[in-house]
Amino acid sequence: MTKAPLPSWADTAARRRILDFVARVTHPGGRDYVPPADRVAVFDNDGTLWVEHPLYTQGMFAMDRAKSMAASHPELAATPAYQAMMRQDLPALAACGKQAVVELLLQLHAHATEESFAVEVRTWLAEARHPRFERLYTALAYQPMRELLAYLSANDFRNFIVTAGGIDFVRAFCEEVYGVPRERVIGSSNKTELKLNGRRAEIRKLAELQSFDEYAAKPVNIALHIGRRPIVAFGNSDGDMAMLQYADSGPGRRLVMLLRHDDEEREYAYDRDTHVGRLDVALATAAERGWTVVSMKEDWLKVFKEKAR
Amino acid sequence: MTKAPLPSWADTAARRRILDFVARVTHPGGRDYVPPADRVAVFDNDGTLWVEHPLYTQGMFAMDRAKSMAASHPELAATPAYQAMMRQDLPALAACGKQAVVELLLQLHAHATEESFAVEVRTWLAEARHPRFERLYTALAYQPMRELLAYLSANDFRNFIVTAGGIDFVRAFCEEVYGVPRERVIGSSNKTELKLNGRRAEIRKLAELQSFDEYAAKPVNIALHIGRRPIVAFGNSDGDMAMLQYADSGPGRRLVMLLRHDDEEREYAYDRDTHVGRLDVALATAAERGWTVVSMKEDWLKVFKEKAR
Repeated sequence: MTKAPLPSWADTAARRRILDFVARVTHPGGRDYVPPADRVAVFDNDGTLWVEHPLYTQGMFAMDRAKSMAASHPELAATPAYQAMMRQDLPALAACGKQAVVELLLQLHAHATEESFAVEVRTWLAEARHPRFERLYTALAYQPMRELLAYLSANDFRNFIVTAGGIDFVRAFCEEVYGVPRERVIGSSNKTELKLNGRRAEIRKLAELQSFDEYAAKPVNIALHIGRRPIVAFGNSDGDMAMLQYADSGPGRRLVMLLRHDDEEREYAYDRDTHVGRLDVALATAAERGWTVVSMKEDWLKVFKEKAR
Repeated sequence: MTKAPLPSWADTAARRRILDFVARVTHPGGRDYVPPADRVAVFDNDGTLWVEHPLYTQGMFAMDRAKSMAASHPELAATPAYQAMMRQDLPALAACGKQAVVELLLQLHAHATEESFAVEVRTWLAEARHPRFERLYTALAYQPMRELLAYLSANDFRNFIVTAGGIDFVRAFCEEVYGVPRERVIGSSNKTELKLNGRRAEIRKLAELQSFDEYAAKPVNIALHIGRRPIVAFGNSDGDMAMLQYADSGPGRRLVMLLRHDDEEREYAYDRDTHVGRLDVALATAAERGWTVVSMKEDWLKVFKEKAR
């Protein structure tokens, strides 16, 4: 006998909706059957696949980088985001907004090559620890979501991550942590250029933002990278709403989900009143359209994988 | 016994180089071993996977569209590319360059949704015929290249198409013709926007070019879409050279190939003196760097699949 799927999910309506949806779309000859080519699922990352409080992980990374690069980047010193970083003032930094943090990070990493940037991110992720949980950030991927990714994958879905975080930041760990190949990450990006370093052709990051992958940019970038409308979409904030609407409004059966952070004890509780992962309009829309709202508190038996002893 | 791979390839150095490369990078424990995650192969489309003379297939499509849309797009009537199209003057149209043709096509299709555009392309491909071969354009995919795609795929490579043609044009037939999933197509693109049509969220094409995917844009877009340097690259013109250099200059063993059109009898013969698929600098570079130049005439037993009787 194979193990029951989604073991970290409580036996509630949310889990049953997922199982029912997958059974229907994979049942050959059934009226909801979807051929494997069309089984595309999209997931937001921050707050959907891993912890985003007190600040997006990439913000924490940027803060550490900013400290070490202050001397060489005096032109950044005047920006509010940079100053908040230097003061380690998380609320102030969060108040600057995700785009300001992403743009600052682009500035900090202009001229990095794709390879050198990946090494930098991996080195940081191997050491930096979350201030509350005191664990590596990659250990704060949600166990129920890792199980969901694996379950969909086993049912011939192709999972994509669609994040407002940097595309190459997430690509530095997506394979090990989520089992999602790098080419299935869509995210915010800066412009890059091809440079010849002797005979070696390298991709170098430029300081200019190319796409800030939130709100309507998510479906726009899904169309660019995937070229097919997803049938499963999972988010947790207003920034994901356009992506959820886009997945929802295709023909046939759809599974659209929102994760609600209502578990102060095991993780965090926030919705309308937060600078990080604000959930307001999307929650009202979910009620109106019958999207599944997953309660971290009620629907998950476990939030994180246990610490190795 | 399984069939010998690449049956439409003659038993020449080109075929042996491919088989040798694949044997080396897939041999566990061998010094050239490459794990499946890193087995990324990139292919140009026009002139590499299918016929590009007397004009890129998308140019033929545009020409047919232009005729039917002349009345509703008077502002385009003044452009040289449009006038050449209306006169069916292929040399003049080719002389306008690939970018002019792509941009005109973008103009013609502004406001199409991703779904309506795909239907339009598929309808055209199901009927339009190549002027010399009198066959559907999709029947003019090179049989040896289809075999190569399948062979790499069977050896756990992920094949990507990297084309100066429109990303959504190629996505309308890549799965049926090449066995390449839509999300593995990278190409020229126009800007798009998300529009709400009642409650339905749709991606609509805008008239503005986002990326013309040729020369240095190819590696730049590979980095954006794939996030990993390919170990196999196959092209046929100077527009592919940056992509070939990029694949070639990573660490470890690489397979870099150029298709040479030297078979006037079965297909076409052209290199330096052509407006479509010019091959000049890349050929010199191939000699200098030891890239494999595949001769259509000498290395392929067959160019196209036989006509069904």
